[in-house]
Amino acid sequence: MQHLAVKLGEQLFHQNEKVATVESCTGGGVAFAITEVAGSSQWFEKSWVTYSNQAKHEEVGVSLSTLNEFGAVSSEVVCEMAQGGLQKSKADYCVAISGIAGPGGGSKQKPVGLVWFAIATQHHTASFSRCFNGDRQEVREQAISLSLQELIDSSLSA
Amino acid sequence: MQHLAVKLGEQLFHQNEKVATVESCTGGGVAFAITEVAGSSQWFEKSWVTYSNQAKHEEVGVSLSTLNEFGAVSSEVVCEMAQGGLQKSKADYCVAISGIAGPGGGSKQKPVGLVWFAIATQHHTASFSRCFNGDRQEVREQAISLSLQELIDSSLSA
Repeated sequence: MQHLAVKLGEQLFHQNEKVATVESCTGGGVAFAITEVAGSSQWFEKSWVTYSNQAKHEEVGVSLSTLNEFGAVSSEVVCEMAQGGLQKSKADYCVAISGIAGPGGGSKQKPVGLVWFAIATQHHTASFSRCFNGDRQEVREQAISLSLQELIDSSLSA
Repeated sequence: MQHLAVKLGEQLFHQNEKVATVESCTGGGVAFAITEVAGSSQWFEKSWVTYSNQAKHEEVGVSLSTLNEFGAVSSEVVCEMAQGGLQKSKADYCVAISGIAGPGGGSKQKPVGLVWFAIATQHHTASFSRCFNGDRQEVREQAISLSLQELIDSSLSA
């Protein structure tokens, strides 16, 4: 996935833009990949790992009623995570990720491997989900790679 | 380093304690390692990646005068990062990491590879530094491993 972080960094650098992340199931893995690239302080300032519901509420302002109504792994929650992170970071793009990496925590409606993503900009927030195969590590790695790819696509089309 | 995260998780789980991280040069890598362990929501709620000085100030309350006087890679700053993260997370342990992963950013007084660490608990904050050999990736990996090992030692002796 490191080539994705390099490509994202090149684009953001050339566009003089910044990115932030608000991560639940990926646990900081997207921020870690972004900052593996030398010079990333040019396009990256801060991120949050909001693993618990309370953290999502306290750090990036996800409303408790949204968490209660839709659950942490939902379009509604990742949209609020991304919008809250964008606002607090003043970045140009903020990606949010919340999913069920497993092995526990799955249900019929929300199986292990389900991950919701959102990318927020000043003008738009888009969310999408995937259900990945594999073990905990593989689910997380696929979620990190997709986050980076979607950030690349978002910054290309901006 | 994954065996360290597993060991840390086992200890924290048995002691019913929680950990938080405030990371600069490791970019979320300690949080990522901690959350690679299944069940980590039992001992982990939130973390911050505070890459810029402004992020260290805004998110965990590092004073701008401390940053100006001592620089981001210093005992004083990692202590304030760890104490701020401990207070905001209500965790039992908070580790903070700030260093020069390279390849740029080094100086005679603060060479590439220098990393400052602090671990804060309610009663005590300890800081220490290492100067690691290797490239950017190797410096970061060693800093993550040492953070996990020191958290293990802190939670053992608590």
